[in-house]
Amino acid sequence: MTELDFRTLDLLISLAVQEDLGFSDITTRAVVEPSLQARGEFVAKQDFTLAGWPVVERVFQTISTAIQVESWKRDGDAIAKGTVFGTADGPAVYLLSSERVALNFLQRLSGIATLTRKFVEAVSGTGAVILDTRKTTPGLRAIEKYAVRMGGGRNHRFGLSDGVLIKENHITAAGGISEAIRRARSGVDHLKKIEIEVATLEELGQSLDAGADAILLDNMSPSQVTEAVRQTGGRVPLEASGGIHLGNVREYALTGVNFISVGALTHSFPSADISLELKL
Amino acid sequence: MTELDFRTLDLLISLAVQEDLGFSDITTRAVVEPSLQARGEFVAKQDFTLAGWPVVERVFQTISTAIQVESWKRDGDAIAKGTVFGTADGPAVYLLSSERVALNFLQRLSGIATLTRKFVEAVSGTGAVILDTRKTTPGLRAIEKYAVRMGGGRNHRFGLSDGVLIKENHITAAGGISEAIRRARSGVDHLKKIEIEVATLEELGQSLDAGADAILLDNMSPSQVTEAVRQTGGRVPLEASGGIHLGNVREYALTGVNFISVGALTHSFPSADISLELKL
Amino acid sequence: MTELDFRTLDLLISLAVQEDLGFSDITTRAVVEPSLQARGEFVAKQDFTLAGWPVVERVFQTISTAIQVESWKRDGDAIAKGTVFGTADGPAVYLLSSERVALNFLQRLSGIATLTRKFVEAVSGTGAVILDTRKTTPGLRAIEKYAVRMGGGRNHRFGLSDGVLIKENHITAAGGISEAIRRARSGVDHLKKIEIEVATLEELGQSLDAGADAILLDNMSPSQVTEAVRQTGGRVPLEASGGIHLGNVREYALTGVNFISVGALTHSFPSADISLELKL
Amino acid sequence: MTELDFRTLDLLISLAVQEDLGFSDITTRAVVEPSLQARGEFVAKQDFTLAGWPVVERVFQTISTAIQVESWKRDGDAIAKGTVFGTADGPAVYLLSSERVALNFLQRLSGIATLTRKFVEAVSGTGAVILDTRKTTPGLRAIEKYAVRMGGGRNHRFGLSDGVLIKENHITAAGGISEAIRRARSGVDHLKKIEIEVATLEELGQSLDAGADAILLDNMSPSQVTEAVRQTGGRVPLEASGGIHLGNVREYALTGVNFISVGALTHSFPSADISLELKL
Amino acid sequence: MTELDFRTLDLLISLAVQEDLGFSDITTRAVVEPSLQARGEFVAKQDFTLAGWPVVERVFQTISTAIQVESWKRDGDAIAKGTVFGTADGPAVYLLSSERVALNFLQRLSGIATLTRKFVEAVSGTGAVILDTRKTTPGLRAIEKYAVRMGGGRNHRFGLSDGVLIKENHITAAGGISEAIRRARSGVDHLKKIEIEVATLEELGQSLDAGADAILLDNMSPSQVTEAVRQTGGRVPLEASGGIHLGNVREYALTGVNFISVGALTHSFPSADISLELKL
Amino acid sequence: MTELDFRTLDLLISLAVQEDLGFSDITTRAVVEPSLQARGEFVAKQDFTLAGWPVVERVFQTISTAIQVESWKRDGDAIAKGTVFGTADGPAVYLLSSERVALNFLQRLSGIATLTRKFVEAVSGTGAVILDTRKTTPGLRAIEKYAVRMGGGRNHRFGLSDGVLIKENHITAAGGISEAIRRARSGVDHLKKIEIEVATLEELGQSLDAGADAILLDNMSPSQVTEAVRQTGGRVPLEASGGIHLGNVREYALTGVNFISVGALTHSFPSADISLELKL
Repeated sequence: MTELDFRTLDLLISLAVQEDLGFSDITTRAVVEPSLQARGEFVAKQDFTLAGWPVVERVFQTISTAIQVESWKRDGDAIAKGTVFGTADGPAVYLLSSERVALNFLQRLSGIATLTRKFVEAVSGTGAVILDTRKTTPGLRAIEKYAVRMGGGRNHRFGLSDGVLIKENHITAAGGISEAIRRARSGVDHLKKIEIEVATLEELGQSLDAGADAILLDNMSPSQVTEAVRQTGGRVPLEASGGIHLGNVREYALTGVNFISVGALTHSFPSADISLELKL
Repeated sequence: MTELDFRTLDLLISLAVQEDLGFSDITTRAVVEPSLQARGEFVAKQDFTLAGWPVVERVFQTISTAIQVESWKRDGDAIAKGTVFGTADGPAVYLLSSERVALNFLQRLSGIATLTRKFVEAVSGTGAVILDTRKTTPGLRAIEKYAVRMGGGRNHRFGLSDGVLIKENHITAAGGISEAIRRARSGVDHLKKIEIEVATLEELGQSLDAGADAILLDNMSPSQVTEAVRQTGGRVPLEASGGIHLGNVREYALTGVNFISVGALTHSFPSADISLELKL
Repeated sequence: MTELDFRTLDLLISLAVQEDLGFSDITTRAVVEPSLQARGEFVAKQDFTLAGWPVVERVFQTISTAIQVESWKRDGDAIAKGTVFGTADGPAVYLLSSERVALNFLQRLSGIATLTRKFVEAVSGTGAVILDTRKTTPGLRAIEKYAVRMGGGRNHRFGLSDGVLIKENHITAAGGISEAIRRARSGVDHLKKIEIEVATLEELGQSLDAGADAILLDNMSPSQVTEAVRQTGGRVPLEASGGIHLGNVREYALTGVNFISVGALTHSFPSADISLELKL
Repeated sequence: MTELDFRTLDLLISLAVQEDLGFSDITTRAVVEPSLQARGEFVAKQDFTLAGWPVVERVFQTISTAIQVESWKRDGDAIAKGTVFGTADGPAVYLLSSERVALNFLQRLSGIATLTRKFVEAVSGTGAVILDTRKTTPGLRAIEKYAVRMGGGRNHRFGLSDGVLIKENHITAAGGISEAIRRARSGVDHLKKIEIEVATLEELGQSLDAGADAILLDNMSPSQVTEAVRQTGGRVPLEASGGIHLGNVREYALTGVNFISVGALTHSFPSADISLELKL
Repeated sequence: MTELDFRTLDLLISLAVQEDLGFSDITTRAVVEPSLQARGEFVAKQDFTLAGWPVVERVFQTISTAIQVESWKRDGDAIAKGTVFGTADGPAVYLLSSERVALNFLQRLSGIATLTRKFVEAVSGTGAVILDTRKTTPGLRAIEKYAVRMGGGRNHRFGLSDGVLIKENHITAAGGISEAIRRARSGVDHLKKIEIEVATLEELGQSLDAGADAILLDNMSPSQVTEAVRQTGGRVPLEASGGIHLGNVREYALTGVNFISVGALTHSFPSADISLELKL
Repeated sequence: MTELDFRTLDLLISLAVQEDLGFSDITTRAVVEPSLQARGEFVAKQDFTLAGWPVVERVFQTISTAIQVESWKRDGDAIAKGTVFGTADGPAVYLLSSERVALNFLQRLSGIATLTRKFVEAVSGTGAVILDTRKTTPGLRAIEKYAVRMGGGRNHRFGLSDGVLIKENHITAAGGISEAIRRARSGVDHLKKIEIEVATLEELGQSLDAGADAILLDNMSPSQVTEAVRQTGGRVPLEASGGIHLGNVREYALTGVNFISVGALTHSFPSADISLELKL
C-alpha cells in the first residue's frame, strides 16, 4: 500500500502557502476579477513519471474549497511531453494564487520519481532492488520517500528509530565491529535486525562472524562487490552504496548484490518541467 | 545585511529532527557509551561554496546544548575538496544523532550557493545580475534564498505579497496588457512597482506604452533579448528568464539585459558532497 | 477584492475562545437546558459601519456547527441605530457561550470601519486618500486593515517586508537622506519604490534630489503641506501624517496632498455598540 | 501579586512579530549598517500611566538577545509628558525592526492603565471599586486585565469558566430568576458564588429572595442604584454596570454601590502617545 | 450538561496517533489489502461503566473519515461482560491502525467511570457526594473529570484558576489560618468562595471563626469527621479527604459530611478490559 | 542509555500547566507574599522506585527559573517510606503553583517503575525478560516506557512504525498465518524481524514453518507455554502475554519463555504516594 500520509503534509503545505502568499497575493487581487471562473491545465513540458498529484489536490483545497481538481493519470504513471494530464477549475484568483505552491510540490516529487524510474529501469532483470536513503530534504522525508515508491524504488528505513544501521562512526565509537554488533544485539528490542556498514572485505568477514543480519558495502568497486557477494554466499542480504550513478548502476546490479541505495534520488534530482496554463 | 532569519527555521529543524530521530536513535543508544566524548570533522568531498553553517550550529544546539560547534570559514567562502572546514565537539551519542539532519541542511544550501556562484562567475564583467525565483522547496524558501545570496546572486521578490509581477495567466485573466497594468496601478499600494512578463517584442512595446516599471522577457532567444534592450532604451529595467543555463547565460548577459533569473538555482541543484567524520 | 484572509484569523479565534471559555462556560452549562433552541438577534445600539460579519460566522462555527448565522447586511454597509441586522439560530447553550467572543471581534472591527468612514467622508471630493498605518493591535493587523477597507479607507504597506519607508531613525542611522535613499535603492529588489519621511521643506528638497519615489510629510501644518505640494509639483506622491484628526483632516486634504495616513483608525477607535438578544 | 503571565503572551508576540516583520525588515536591512550600535529612548508624548514594560523587554528579547532594555520606572507609575522613561541599547538594525511591535503593545496597555487610573481617581474616597469586564481584545485578555490592575482597577472574573454570572439571556433561557439561580446553585461546584444581572428593582427583590450571592445592576440610573442599595441593605455586594463614563462615575460611586464595572476600559481606550527615538 | 469538550482532546488524539503510528503502521500496510472492508466489534471482557465513546468516534475520524462507528450504549451506561456494545465499519487497514489508540482512551476512561460508580454506590442513600481531585493524568484532566461524571461522581474545581482552596502549605506561608482567609477574601474577585483545608478540630474552629465558606477535613478518622460535622452545625459545607477507599467510604459518608473527595478515582484506577475483534 | 527524551515532554508539561494553572493560581496569588522564599521537601509516603525526577526539574523550570531543584537519589533508585528524597527552593508562590503538576507526573511514573520492579523481582533468576506493551496513556508513551526501564523492565517496540507484530486481526485479514508472514516479509524493509501472535500450539507450528522470526503466545496457560517452548526448541524467541499478573508471572517465567509482556505495567498501576511539604 503506497498511500501518502497526510499528517505532516498539511503542516508543510501551510508553511509553503504562508511563505508564498504572505498576507495576500497582491498582483492577483488587483488584476483579476473575483468572479472570473477559469480552467487551469497541467501540461508536461518533458517526459516524466508523475508523483504528487494528491498533494496538488490538497494544496488547492487548502487555498479554496471552490476549486475542483481532476486528473486521468495516477501517481506512478509515465507522462509524455506535451500531454495535458490534469485540470483545476474554479475562481481564477484562487487558481493563480495556488499555482506556484502546487507546482513546487509536483515538480520536485515528479523529479524524484522520474530519476528513480531511470535507476530501476537500468537494473531491470538483475534482481537488484533500488533503495533510497535518509539524504532527504528536511521536513519532506515522508513525501520524498513516497515519490521514490512511485518511481518503482523501495524505501530503506524511515529514520533512526525504526531500523539499526551501524555506520563507520558507530564502529569507531564502539571500538570495533564485533563489539558494536554485540551491543546492538543486546540493546535494541527483539524485532530489529542489525545491519552494519563495511568498507573492506576484511570487515565484511568480521561482520559475518559477528552475526550481522545485513551488510552495507560502502564505496566498493563492482569487482569488490562481486567478491563480497561470493564471500557472503547468500547468508545475509548485501547492500551496495556510494559512488553509484546511472552510468554504473547496472554493473553493480550484475554483481548479484541484493540492494543498491542511491542518495541522489532525493538529494540531487532535477525537478520535472511542468506548467499550469489558464484557459478562460 | 545577509543574515539568516531563524524564525521559520526552528520549525523546520524540529520537523527534520522529528522525522529523522522519531522516538529515539536506537542504533546510537545501543552501541555508543553515553559518556564518550568525540570530535566530528566536517570534510569537503568536492570544491564548493559554503552556505548553511549557522543552520548546522542550530541543529546541534537543538539536539544537545552539550555540543560545541566551530568553523573558521564563513557562509559564502569557497572551500576546496579535502578541506576540514569545521568541527563539532561533545558527547558522541549526540554527534551521531545530529549528523544526518545537519548534513541534509548543509549539503542542500551549499549546493545552491555553489550553483549560484557558477552562474555569477559566468556573467562576470557584464553588469547582468543573477536572480532567483519562487521555484523553491516548500517550506525552505527563506533559507534557500539566503543560500542564493551566499553564492553571490540577488533575490527577486520573496513571495506574492511583496512585489507585483503580472504573468501571462494574469494578462489572460485581465483581458490584455494595458488593462492588467492599469488595474495593478490602481489596486496596489503606492510603494510597489509594476513588473510584467512578455513573450514578444510587440508585447514589450505595449507594456512600455502602458507604463510598466519593469519587464520580464520570457523564453526569448539572446537575439530577441538584444532587440528588446535596444527597443527599451533604458527606460525600465529588463529581466530575462526561461531556458537559461550555464551554457548560454553569458550570451544572455552580453545583450545588456539588467537581470537574469534562473529557477534551476533552487529547483534542480546538486547537493554538495560533505561528510562528518568522527575522531575519538 | 476585499476578502478577509482566514489563515491567521483561525488561530486568533481559537485564542479568544480559549481565554473566554477556559475549560467550560459553567453558568450556561448549569442554567440552560442542552436541548433548548433559540434565536439570537444582533441589534445596533448606535449608527455604525459594519465590519467583521464573516468573523462572527466563523466564531460560531468554531464553537458549534449546529448554529446557523445569517445577515442581510454586508461588511461596509451602514447600519442605523435600533436595526436588527443579523441572526444566529441554534442551541441556546452554544449561542450564549459564543456571544462575547463574537461581539468582541464585531464591535472592534465595526468601530474601526465606523471611524474610517468618518475620515473618508470628511475628505470627500478632495481627491485625498485616507490610509491606515502599522499602529495596529498585536496579532490583529490583517483583520484591522480589512476593517479600514470596509470603512472606505485604503491600506498602506502591510508590514516591514513589503514596502520601503525610510523613517527619521533610519536617516539618523544612515547618516543622511541621500545616503539612506542610495542604500535603499541598491539594497532592495527592483520591484520596490522608495518612500522617505521628512520633517521640513529642506529635507523634502533633499529627498526629491536624491530620487525618492514617494515622500511622507511628518507632523507638518496644513500650510507647510501646501508649500510642500507646490514645491514637489507632482513629481512624486506625497503623504501627510501626524497630528491629523477629524477636526483638521479636511484642511489637510484641501492642500492637494495625495495620501493622509491616520494611526488613530486602529489605535484609538471606540468600539461600536452592538448587542446580541436571545429570543426563545 | 500583579505579575504578568508570560505563557500566552509569547504566542501573541510571535504573531505580532510575524505580521510586522514578515520575511524581513527590508528597509532597515538595506539602509542600516549591521555593525552600528545605537540607543533608543522611550519618550512620553503625553502624561500617562505606564503598563507593559515587561512586554517591551520580551519583544526585544524575541527579536534579538543582543539588545539591553532598561527602565527606571515600573508598571503602574505615572509618567509626565516629555520624560525619557526607558532605553534600549544594541544593534540599530534590531532596535529599528522591533520598535513598532514594542510600541504597539506598550501604547495600548498604557492607554488602558491611563484610562483606568482616571476612573479610579474619579471615585476616590467613595469605597467603590472599579472593575473591568470581558469586553477585551480577542487574544489579549490576560495582558489587558493586567493593565487594568496597573491603573488601580480590579479584575472581574477572567472568563466563563471561573465565575458564575447569570445574565439577561440566561434568565430568558431558564424561564425566570429563581429557576436560574436554583439551577446554578445545584449545577456548579461548591466553590462558586452566584451573581445575577437585574434590570429593575423588582428583579432585584426576586434575586435576593432566591438567594443570589451578588447582584449586577444593569443600566440603572444613579437614583435607581441608590434605591437598590437601600433595598439590599448590605446583604450581598452590588455591582453597577452600563452607561457609566468619566462624567457620571462619581455619581454612581456615591450611591454606596460596591463595584462599578466599565467595559470602555478595554474596548474604547485611546492608546498612549509614546515614541522611540534613536541616538547614535 | 455533561458534554465532553473537544478542544484540547484533538491535540491529545493527535499526540496519541503520532506516538503510535509514527510514519506508518508497517505491519498493517504490508499484510492487509487496502481494499478489504471489515467490521470491528467492541467486546466487554468484564462488567464496566462506559465512558469515552465520543473519543473513540473522534479517534477513528482522525485516522480516516471512511470509518463508520456506532454504539447502542451511551457514556454512563453499565455494560455486562461478554456484550458487544459497539461497532466500527470500514477499510480493515484503518480499523487496525486505529485500534490501540481508540482502546487506550476507552479503557482508561471507562476504568475511571467504573471505579467512580463503585464509590457512588457505596455511599448511596447517605447524601454524601463523591468528588474527584486535581490528581489527574497530565494533559487528560478534562476527559478524566468527564469520566468521573459518567460514573456518577461530581467534579471539584477544575484547576487553580477557578476555585480557592487554602491548603496546609498556604497556611504555613501565610502564617496562620485567619490571616490566610483574610488575604484570600480581599485578594480574589467577589465571585469566589473560600475553602480551607484543616487537619484538626481546633483548626476547624479557627476556620469557622475566620469566616471560611467551606472546609476540607484532611486525613481525619470517621469519628473525627463526625465530631467536625457536629461542631460545624451546617454553617458551611464540609469535605472529607485522605485515606478514603472503598472499604471505609460508607463509614465516612454516614458521618453526615457533605462531600468526599477521592484522588484514586483518577490516579490509581485499573483500566477496563475491552477488546476490538475484527469480522470480515 | 536510558535518558529521557524531552521533545514531546515539553508539550505535555505545557498542557498540564495550562490545564492546572489556567490564567492564574488565584489562591496562591492572594494568600502568599511574592517575596517569601521557601523550601519544599519531597517525602515518600510509601516504599517505591523513583522515576520522573528529571520531569519534576523541568516542570519547575517551566513555571519559574527562580526555583532550584535537587535530589540525592536517581531514577531507578528504591526509596523507603518516610524518606525526604529531594528539595525545591525558591519563591513560595512558584513552589505552590507547581506542586500538583510536578507530583502528578512523579507519582504516575514512580508508580509504573514500582510495579515493574515487582514483576522483575518476581522472575529474578529465570532468564525471562519483563516487557511493556503499547497499552500506554495517550500522549505519555515515551515517559511511561522510560519509567518501565527505570523499574528494570525492557521495552517492546515503541509503536506501529518500528516493529512488525502480526496480531490475530491481521491474520484474519490476510486469510491465514503463512500468507500474513509472506506478505510481511515482502512488504517491509530488510531491517525488520517478523513477530506473530498465536493462540494455539498448532498456530505456533504453522508460524515456525512459515519462517516467523519471533512468536507471541497469547493467553496460553503456563503448561501450554512449556509445551510451546519445547516445540520451538530455541529456533526463535518466544513471548508470553495475556492474563499474567504478579501471582503467576514466576510460573510463566519458569517455562523458559524468553519474554513476558505485561499491559498492566502502564494501564493499571497505582500511583506512588509522594507529597511535597513546605518549610519556611
